[in-house]
Amino acid sequence: MTGGKSRRTGSAPFDRVAIIGLGLIGSSLARALRREKLARRIVGCDASPGVRAVAKKLHLADTLVSDAGAAVVGADLVVVAVPQSAYAAVGAAMADRLKRGAIVTDVGSVKQAAIQALAPRLPPETPFVPGHPLAGTENSGPAAGFAELFAGRWCILTPLSGTPAPAVAKVREMWRRCGMHVETMDAAHHDRVLAITSHVPHLIAYTIVDTVAALESRMKGEVIKFAASGFRDFTRVAASDPVMWRDIFLANKEAVLEMMGRLYEDIALLQKAIRNDDGKLLHRVFTRSRRIRRSIVQAKQD
Amino acid sequence: MTGGKSRRTGSAPFDRVAIIGLGLIGSSLARALRREKLARRIVGCDASPGVRAVAKKLHLADTLVSDAGAAVVGADLVVVAVPQSAYAAVGAAMADRLKRGAIVTDVGSVKQAAIQALAPRLPPETPFVPGHPLAGTENSGPAAGFAELFAGRWCILTPLSGTPAPAVAKVREMWRRCGMHVETMDAAHHDRVLAITSHVPHLIAYTIVDTVAALESRMKGEVIKFAASGFRDFTRVAASDPVMWRDIFLANKEAVLEMMGRLYEDIALLQKAIRNDDGKLLHRVFTRSRRIRRSIVQAKQD
Repeated sequence: MTGGKSRRTGSAPFDRVAIIGLGLIGSSLARALRREKLARRIVGCDASPGVRAVAKKLHLADTLVSDAGAAVVGADLVVVAVPQSAYAAVGAAMADRLKRGAIVTDVGSVKQAAIQALAPRLPPETPFVPGHPLAGTENSGPAAGFAELFAGRWCILTPLSGTPAPAVAKVREMWRRCGMHVETMDAAHHDRVLAITSHVPHLIAYTIVDTVAALESRMKGEVIKFAASGFRDFTRVAASDPVMWRDIFLANKEAVLEMMGRLYEDIALLQKAIRNDDGKLLHRVFTRSRRIRRSIVQAKQD
Repeated sequence: MTGGKSRRTGSAPFDRVAIIGLGLIGSSLARALRREKLARRIVGCDASPGVRAVAKKLHLADTLVSDAGAAVVGADLVVVAVPQSAYAAVGAAMADRLKRGAIVTDVGSVKQAAIQALAPRLPPETPFVPGHPLAGTENSGPAAGFAELFAGRWCILTPLSGTPAPAVAKVREMWRRCGMHVETMDAAHHDRVLAITSHVPHLIAYTIVDTVAALESRMKGEVIKFAASGFRDFTRVAASDPVMWRDIFLANKEAVLEMMGRLYEDIALLQKAIRNDDGKLLHRVFTRSRRIRRSIVQAKQD
């Protein structure tokens, strides 16, 4: 059986892939790796017994373990897909158990913090390729994953100056086979771009939903009942995993606070225009926003 | 021909409906009235020759006119569906031409302002039923409309103390046949509920998209390219009709500014939590937001 399987997938780019964390991204990657026959063997790792039970039922991996150290033994690729607050512990647990030459990558949303938490803990010769697949849904956990999650989306890799090019190429090829467009950029630049495209919108969405939560109960009931398009879209954004998002804001503090500062100035301007009945300014801003939307539709990101 | 048509639709609840303004809502209503055989004859009115040309091509109405005064002659139902800044002019144009007993309703998003602009201009005995179908898309204009726009959504009517009950019942029945759930409430309460469910979310979405527009051009290009879920959802909200939204913010100034004030307090709290690494507070707020989202999904508003 094993021999036959080994021959059938003999050309898999990776012999043994360890996925640390089987949430939405980790479990979707496991499915995509299977579909694309990218790994001869997948080791799934999650600290939660509940997550492992679901992963077992769904046959997400060939082996399931609870400890990152045990998971990486013999792996030629390790994908870290846990919330970023757990990176340092995962890095420490796996450092001594990594096979020589094993590539380490991750899927975290804040790249400078990912590098700071993982890089110092890995053996110095480890090829480390920080990565961020820009894919997700409002749902979380291993049952929410699906192989097509990555199709047509961008993946940003932020290699360090010392990361060997062949390791970057292998990780790039993995994501490409999962259906992603892959780009590389500097980690600090990534974090600023993501602050405004993703982190600040989520912070605002969480806030506005929470403002509603604080309304008197009759009003709150009606807000939920009459959730017109605007609020409904915000609540979808605000339904994402609370632990992941807590970690993102703490990890990307500087860039998020800087972008929030810019946003404040713009909100103040519109608010003043409303107060002063300045319809011209409102119309000008709203027309400009519509153009940006059209650029996004043209860039096929919708 | 006319006789046959008249017999076939002899049971239509309205003999002649005038729709003033053939944008997304007006043109969708025209289609729904046709589908449901709710009117023997539809008169479409729009000040824009371009809009009338599209409406003619799409056969949206039996008659197309440019002037609200001409449109309402002989109509037993008049639906005002123009941006709210045009309400006073439309009211003045049609006041002297309304048939005795003709019901006037509207679809504007801010009910107190709608009443203030229309009611004083209508003959005192006119049955006026202010209304607001909570339906829409990011697109605008007569070609963007479709009969199913209203299906499964809420319509809020805010009758005045003097509005006769049979007029309210007829308008309610019209929207019900268009597929809507209809509720009545006080105009001031409507405006506060909509400020937080719809107007403030749109204001924030417009602002954040505009903040992006102000970024240096390399960064802006990347933001558009990598528009992850958060920002993409915001731009969808911010693509709505600029004239309509300018009018909404000016018309619902008080409620919007009040809700913005509450929102500011909540943003400040989260921002401080990020600055102080208060993960506990962030997690608590994000978990609460998720619950609100679930209520909305349960209320089938998604």
